[in-house]
Amino acid sequence: MQFSPLLSRLIETLTYLPGIGKKGATRIAFQMLERNREGAMALSHALHDAMEHIKHCRMCRTFTEDEICAICANTRRVDSGVLCIVESPQDVVAIEQTASFEGTYFVLMGHLSPIDGIGPEDLGLDELEARLANGKLQEVILATNPTVEGEATAHYISQLCQKHNVAASRIAHGVPVGGELEYIDGNTLMHAFSGRKTL
Amino acid sequence: MQFSPLLSRLIETLTYLPGIGKKGATRIAFQMLERNREGAMALSHALHDAMEHIKHCRMCRTFTEDEICAICANTRRVDSGVLCIVESPQDVVAIEQTASFEGTYFVLMGHLSPIDGIGPEDLGLDELEARLANGKLQEVILATNPTVEGEATAHYISQLCQKHNVAASRIAHGVPVGGELEYIDGNTLMHAFSGRKTL
Ligand SMILES: [Zn+2]
Ligand SMILES: [Zn+2]
Repeated sequence: MQFSPLLSRLIETLTYLPGIGKKGATRIAFQMLERNREGAMALSHALHDAMEHIKHCRMCRTFTEDEICAICANTRRVDSGVLCIVESPQDVVAIEQTASFEGTYFVLMGHLSPIDGIGPEDLGLDELEARLANGKLQEVILATNPTVEGEATAHYISQLCQKHNVAASRIAHGVPVGGELEYIDGNTLMHAFSGRKTL
Repeated sequence: MQFSPLLSRLIETLTYLPGIGKKGATRIAFQMLERNREGAMALSHALHDAMEHIKHCRMCRTFTEDEICAICANTRRVDSGVLCIVESPQDVVAIEQTASFEGTYFVLMGHLSPIDGIGPEDLGLDELEARLANGKLQEVILATNPTVEGEATAHYISQLCQKHNVAASRIAHGVPVGGELEYIDGNTLMHAFSGRKTL
């Protein structure tokens, strides 16, 4: 089926959205044209403005259109001296939803991956080291993912912390709360055993 | 979690897309910012241009930015004198994919629905009647959906056809080819029985 050029282009570009295939894009295009042109126009403007203006926070590297994000601009949180290192802005969202962490973050925007040519500078570890050196941090919590790359990245950063005499800790890995042992993968179970605590 | 204003607006407007919830929108926003700003910008422009310029074909009412869509501009198809009535542009796509219909379409962009205040004029049935009256149509194929509203709409149009002496037919409803009887709903089975053909 030959769509008109503008409709073809709309369907094609909708497939750029992760998780949207050709069929879904066609359905979305028709539905927006039929029922929500205003909404589609609002989305068009929001996409444009976001891509044009959202950069990285100068302190923690998360996404924001401001120089400094809201968390880094919160002096109470900065003064805590606790810095949590995560791989992505989504990780910040997940941790913030627990409402239990009161420090600030440092978002790597990835992890060390020599095969992909991603080294320490790509993760902003030079900036991180400058902060470790300035003496204002009491503790660094390493919350990278429990993957090979995440562990290697955590290990690398823990050595930077050691070098600058800043306490470093790794978040605990084990059986999820409410999880049933029977359904947990072996690797997680091994972590749960080796990380056991004396009662 | 408090996102920056532009990021909040992006996530909010992404939920205007049918089938995308808050969580999916957040994931999409981050992924586009991280990995495909160019694609997001292209989508922004495509959305803008589509919503601004895509209107309805003057002949068949389907979506197009041209006065007349590609199918209606095809004289071979127009000269066939066969017009297929469907409820939506997606139906045109489905029929075109079979590559077996060589006439043109008339897209109602809905169906008669007195409760929702949708009457004949809203479906362009005045325009359709003008075409039935001008003597160039040999046959009208009613391909509205096999729902209460679709049937009522087909019935209404068949009466217009009768009034203007244009042959009208309704597409067959029954067990889908390859479908297993066991899994077909009762209504479809009833249609299949009442629509049986002598061998
Ligand atoms: Zn920040
Ligand atoms: Zn047309």
